[in-house]
Amino acid sequence: MKLHGYFRSSASYRVRIALNLKGLSADHLPHHLRKGEQRDPAYLAINPQGLVPTLQDGGGATLTQSLAIIEWLDETHPEPPLLPGDPLQRAKIRAFAQVIACDTHPVQNLKVLARLRELGHGDATVTEWAAWANREGLAACEALIAHESGPFCFGVSPTLADLCLVPQLANARRFGVDLAAYPRLLRAEAAAKNLAAFADAAPERQPDAE
Amino acid sequence: MKLHGYFRSSASYRVRIALNLKGLSADHLPHHLRKGEQRDPAYLAINPQGLVPTLQDGGGATLTQSLAIIEWLDETHPEPPLLPGDPLQRAKIRAFAQVIACDTHPVQNLKVLARLRELGHGDATVTEWAAWANREGLAACEALIAHESGPFCFGVSPTLADLCLVPQLANARRFGVDLAAYPRLLRAEAAAKNLAAFADAAPERQPDAE
Repeated sequence: MKLHGYFRSSASYRVRIALNLKGLSADHLPHHLRKGEQRDPAYLAINPQGLVPTLQDGGGATLTQSLAIIEWLDETHPEPPLLPGDPLQRAKIRAFAQVIACDTHPVQNLKVLARLRELGHGDATVTEWAAWANREGLAACEALIAHESGPFCFGVSPTLADLCLVPQLANARRFGVDLAAYPRLLRAEAAAKNLAAFADAAPERQPDAE
Repeated sequence: MKLHGYFRSSASYRVRIALNLKGLSADHLPHHLRKGEQRDPAYLAINPQGLVPTLQDGGGATLTQSLAIIEWLDETHPEPPLLPGDPLQRAKIRAFAQVIACDTHPVQNLKVLARLRELGHGDATVTEWAAWANREGLAACEALIAHESGPFCFGVSPTLADLCLVPQLANARRFGVDLAAYPRLLRAEAAAKNLAAFADAAPERQPDAE
């Protein structure tokens, strides 16, 4: 398999964790987002949205969108499961993941922040926008798992929720968000970071890290 | 079941279509987003994110995030299926849905547009921001299904992809986007709108429509 990504892309980071948890290896093909390499025509031909990640499996299939890729990995390589069997629990875990993947990350991604700069906003306003998006999302996530015993977001092993949470917390720190308000999220993160699958997927461990 | 929503919320609209396709009825509880009713403490207690939709089933379960709700409906009420059995095809349909639900809709929702106004931007800039987000997302969606024979996004019956597409096109029109560039999307929309499940879920058909 080939994973098109970028060390700092939190959506790529989610897929790296999933591959590691499943014990799958992939060639990592970096696309430098700040240099605009994701808009190269050769890349747009495989991912018309010009975003990372894209996963190409050995059989010629091309998969885009991190949550869709992770659910595909979970369906084709079921062990260890990233979603449980119970429909209601699956829905709760997917909802947590979507608070991050739908309502948080896309509002603070490079493309949106670049658009804010085009509207004339400087570093302070752009960073505060990104921090706001993170605070809103993380507060909702904290409430969603406040009564889950853990130590992971949902139970004693990592799920799709943890795969989204850990990369988003890395973003939040980059934008200067005070994480003290989210003790339950930090507890889940600590549990995850004890696992090599998470630690090895961290941005600073990737070959394209700067 | 009870569906907390808002007539013009495209995420609520997706769930209304899913309920109709499954032949399920729900009490519709409107929350007027422009009046801020989604931030009432009583509503925040069931959905800490303060967004719509929320689905409460008869058994006491509370579900949030439209895609998670729809997948739960599909898993608990399998007929007619909104996702096929083949993992690769499921991944393609989910990716299409996520282009809309992750990368398009949240960037142009009421909350983000209100934030732009707080930064001092007027109607023209705010509407152009929303139109831009729609154009970017719809262009990617058009490319993703350009070679799908249809008439729906993926095949001869509606899937999760169509449930996301039809409400997003309603948003795009509201923001003045020229849809002529997306003929394949319009063809899928036309097929969907022939079905009562889609027509009955339209914003203008809801009791809280203004």
